[in-house]
Amino acid sequence: MNMRTRKHGETALFGALSGAVRSIAYKSAAVVGITTFASAVLASAASAQPIRHDAEHYVLLHQYAEQWAAEDKELDRRLAEIRERNDGKPPNIVYILIDDMGFGEFGMPELNKIRGGRTPSLDTLAKEGMTFTRFYAENICTSTRVAFMTGRYAVRTGMELTKVTPPEGVGFNDKEVTIAELLSNAGYTTHHIGKWHMGDIKEAYPTNQGFDYASFPMHNQVAYSFLTRDAELDARTTSFTPTTVDPDYGLDKTFRLYDWVTQVEGKRGGKLREWGIKPGEKPDIEFYKRVNDRFQEQAVESLRALASGDKPFFLNYWPQIPVAVLRSTDDGGCQTPNCGRWANAMAVVDGYIGELLAEIKKLGIENNTIVMVMGDNGPMKQDLELSGYSEWLFRGTKGQALEGGHRVGAFIRWPGAIEPGSIAGDMVFVSDLYTTFARIAGNTDGIPRDRIVDGVDQTAILLKGDTNGRRDYVHLYEVDTLKATVKQNMKIHWPPPGVNPAMAEFYNLYWDPREDNPLKYQGVWAGTPFVRMRIQHLRMKDKWPDWQPARGMPYEGVENLRPETKAMVRTWLKIYGDARDVVLGVEAIGN
Amino acid sequence: MNMRTRKHGETALFGALSGAVRSIAYKSAAVVGITTFASAVLASAASAQPIRHDAEHYVLLHQYAEQWAAEDKELDRRLAEIRERNDGKPPNIVYILIDDMGFGEFGMPELNKIRGGRTPSLDTLAKEGMTFTRFYAENICTSTRVAFMTGRYAVRTGMELTKVTPPEGVGFNDKEVTIAELLSNAGYTTHHIGKWHMGDIKEAYPTNQGFDYASFPMHNQVAYSFLTRDAELDARTTSFTPTTVDPDYGLDKTFRLYDWVTQVEGKRGGKLREWGIKPGEKPDIEFYKRVNDRFQEQAVESLRALASGDKPFFLNYWPQIPVAVLRSTDDGGCQTPNCGRWANAMAVVDGYIGELLAEIKKLGIENNTIVMVMGDNGPMKQDLELSGYSEWLFRGTKGQALEGGHRVGAFIRWPGAIEPGSIAGDMVFVSDLYTTFARIAGNTDGIPRDRIVDGVDQTAILLKGDTNGRRDYVHLYEVDTLKATVKQNMKIHWPPPGVNPAMAEFYNLYWDPREDNPLKYQGVWAGTPFVRMRIQHLRMKDKWPDWQPARGMPYEGVENLRPETKAMVRTWLKIYGDARDVVLGVEAIGN
Repeated sequence: MNMRTRKHGETALFGALSGAVRSIAYKSAAVVGITTFASAVLASAASAQPIRHDAEHYVLLHQYAEQWAAEDKELDRRLAEIRERNDGKPPNIVYILIDDMGFGEFGMPELNKIRGGRTPSLDTLAKEGMTFTRFYAENICTSTRVAFMTGRYAVRTGMELTKVTPPEGVGFNDKEVTIAELLSNAGYTTHHIGKWHMGDIKEAYPTNQGFDYASFPMHNQVAYSFLTRDAELDARTTSFTPTTVDPDYGLDKTFRLYDWVTQVEGKRGGKLREWGIKPGEKPDIEFYKRVNDRFQEQAVESLRALASGDKPFFLNYWPQIPVAVLRSTDDGGCQTPNCGRWANAMAVVDGYIGELLAEIKKLGIENNTIVMVMGDNGPMKQDLELSGYSEWLFRGTKGQALEGGHRVGAFIRWPGAIEPGSIAGDMVFVSDLYTTFARIAGNTDGIPRDRIVDGVDQTAILLKGDTNGRRDYVHLYEVDTLKATVKQNMKIHWPPPGVNPAMAEFYNLYWDPREDNPLKYQGVWAGTPFVRMRIQHLRMKDKWPDWQPARGMPYEGVENLRPETKAMVRTWLKIYGDARDVVLGVEAIGN
Repeated sequence: MNMRTRKHGETALFGALSGAVRSIAYKSAAVVGITTFASAVLASAASAQPIRHDAEHYVLLHQYAEQWAAEDKELDRRLAEIRERNDGKPPNIVYILIDDMGFGEFGMPELNKIRGGRTPSLDTLAKEGMTFTRFYAENICTSTRVAFMTGRYAVRTGMELTKVTPPEGVGFNDKEVTIAELLSNAGYTTHHIGKWHMGDIKEAYPTNQGFDYASFPMHNQVAYSFLTRDAELDARTTSFTPTTVDPDYGLDKTFRLYDWVTQVEGKRGGKLREWGIKPGEKPDIEFYKRVNDRFQEQAVESLRALASGDKPFFLNYWPQIPVAVLRSTDDGGCQTPNCGRWANAMAVVDGYIGELLAEIKKLGIENNTIVMVMGDNGPMKQDLELSGYSEWLFRGTKGQALEGGHRVGAFIRWPGAIEPGSIAGDMVFVSDLYTTFARIAGNTDGIPRDRIVDGVDQTAILLKGDTNGRRDYVHLYEVDTLKATVKQNMKIHWPPPGVNPAMAEFYNLYWDPREDNPLKYQGVWAGTPFVRMRIQHLRMKDKWPDWQPARGMPYEGVENLRPETKAMVRTWLKIYGDARDVVLGVEAIGN
């Protein structure tokens, strides 16, 4: 038996567990007073009021609370040392979130060879930092972004539905305490550049969610790249443009709405201005390219401005490409031997990342800057055909509670803190970044205690390396339905309502990472603990229910709405206002 | 367009091609005098009689013959330098062939994390040597072994059928000129240890195929690990042991034969002796473990003996495990967190490799020894359930002309010649090792010219690195049927007889490495060149037909056959002799 044993000394800890704990955890599938259970652990875990975690985390706290508390002291010393080396400043954080970058597509040269892809910048980041091999995002854009911003499953915030076609009139609730707010309160200057995708109403704008400055598209990038005349000609959308509406039978003239707000910028709490478009102008693929290039310029400009200040900074850069399904975003040639549309665009994004890394170096801030790059979910099913990518190491795509939907490429570099070229096999969920970045910035206390925060502090992985993770489970949702639960290397696919969980399929993800072959009798033992996990998770939601998203007037606070945008919103309000529970009247939009 | 252009300067070469060549290659799908075509190129390629390659290679020769000839001079200088540094001796070659090791399972730490596997020795080999990302084996044990030994598709030798249940009375033809013979003639001492699987007749024994010494099991390892009482108890075989034959209805008492020859050893041209078993003894799983441990000891002993000689050596070590489907080969615990049966055994094999690497270092021969480790085909379908492995990066398993059947893990180390940590994305077929090792040993001239040799000389990849390969196609067979052809990143699945090739499915392997989504119109352009490739390949086979395997008396030349073995062979001959065209009579077996 030459298997490395985990550093936590779990055998001793298991032995020390009281019979009571075991009975809670394993004896009964029904919930044995989860509140009491949680409270007891919480009380013993720390003197300050602890974060209210999801149920399953307490099972680990029972086993590791003391060990982690001791380790936390060591980690705090390390963090203090790092701050001291950097004039007392906690590290800058540059967080780059890439659309649809499933695990294995990038940053691994062997696999790039197989795909005919090339990502030299990500390869460099991987070599100089840490590669995660088991990083779970949520399975769709909005949800992952919300989970990062709030440290919570998107479903808790009511933001589990992805909005694609504008306008929306729905968004991110300002009761949420975002990572930008936490970092801001810790003394960080905070900028957001690029995709936002969390609502087109005032309270959802990044400038009202903790960012000092933001430049962002009001909607999903689909509005630029699918819903255009180019898309129609490219046969990528069907009958979206006005010229293709059947004049005889296409009764509803509002089925397709145009003239939405494109991209805006503004400062904290202030008005937004739409930029880069003139009244009467119709976005096309060239427009999209110009906007994306401008976002990249703004990211570099932000980096320079932020680096010149005295404060630590948080630069949140979420490029819109590689989502670019129409044609390659370059001059029509191939960026890589793969030459698929998404692959080509990803090569451009890799160039963006390279430019930022070079700028960070040039600015002399490399040693006190965390750079993280990750995907927001797996590949997009609808885009597989011509994208140059496909389901690969994991089965499933964006939107699915399969590993292929959730497991993403993720790389983090932090010179002097994270060991170069390291690989972490620990399970990490995107919400953990919230808790971890807050800790690193010194503002764990700012994390709200009046709600469930799913994020687990994973600082130990960064500072101590592989096998120091504090998570061994994750619940996977599709929209508001719990579809799968992962614990260690076991996974259960929850059957639909009305089907006995005894019929559930189990997978051993080590044996079968693609979830192709459900276990036979070998998995049945896991039934009871998985059902317990599910019940406890859902029972906690009874006590701390999911929130509703905020609703409001689209585009409120945008000071230069184009006339055609105003007209479109008026139509929209007239037609859908009541049905969609929009709270403001048409007159609020002004002239 | 930032794509790296290939070093061969193909544009200029394409321009220089004569119209005649283009018309041969592309104008007509019918074969335009392939012999003349080949002869013309052959005549211009070298002054010595050139190797007779498969048709498609001449398409490349037309484009690269001059460039490769010039490059070959440089490579010869490099090889001479390397020999000079090592007392004039060409490098030793240690070739380790692992059963069923598909690409990605081992030697890549990120993927090991996902599988819960650990292969520190292979990881080291990869770090110190070269990883191939596009290495094609044949898709089944015997075929890959034959292709390595002969440099030819197994189908050309008649050895495309895998023999599983002994006895066979069939084997490798002694007309074949094996790599062992080539190396032997170049002054190498040659040893073979472990799995052979190319026949149980005299002319097929390794000691009659170029090895100075060999210790090997007479049959496939299935005989040890499936066809035993343990297997029956473990429900891995059904009704194989005599106790489970239905006494009432199991009429044919020879349906299951036992008492085959287990493992033998001997010297070049001499008698073989069966070892490790007594008359009356029945192999079981413990027996299998002992035999495998002994093979490993013999490999180490061989290494020591070979290193102590003055001559360069070739050690051909083909372990029987990780094929061990019954239980883990260790003490019943887990060798890795994966803990599947195959995964556990592979951890043991990795330990074997580590021991050999350490011994090579200890013997001080590291700098002049090539060590290559590779898989012989993808995972075994029948073993997926409990093996801990599965189809993964590629779809398909052993026996299938899918990438998952053919693409294997392959690593090669050659200090001072191959750049450490390098990755080659060039296409390599297992037959290429024959030609390449012959070249490195200085015996290209020994390669026979009277038959087709499919192996391409790939020395340039080793000495000059990635992108210096000389192959961009491979034909994939299932048994004797051409099932798929790969050219560059395109692949065609040949439809069954009677179906128009216009209905064939095309795949872009960069876009879709798992062959899950056949291309739509995007692939149709490839139809004509693929049909041309197929016709030319098959037409050459009309002129140089596939050979028949040799047939003979099983176990001839084994000097200590057990009484029960003799009795079994007598039964076998009586029952199957005529039907199976066995040429020797029952009396030839003696007493």
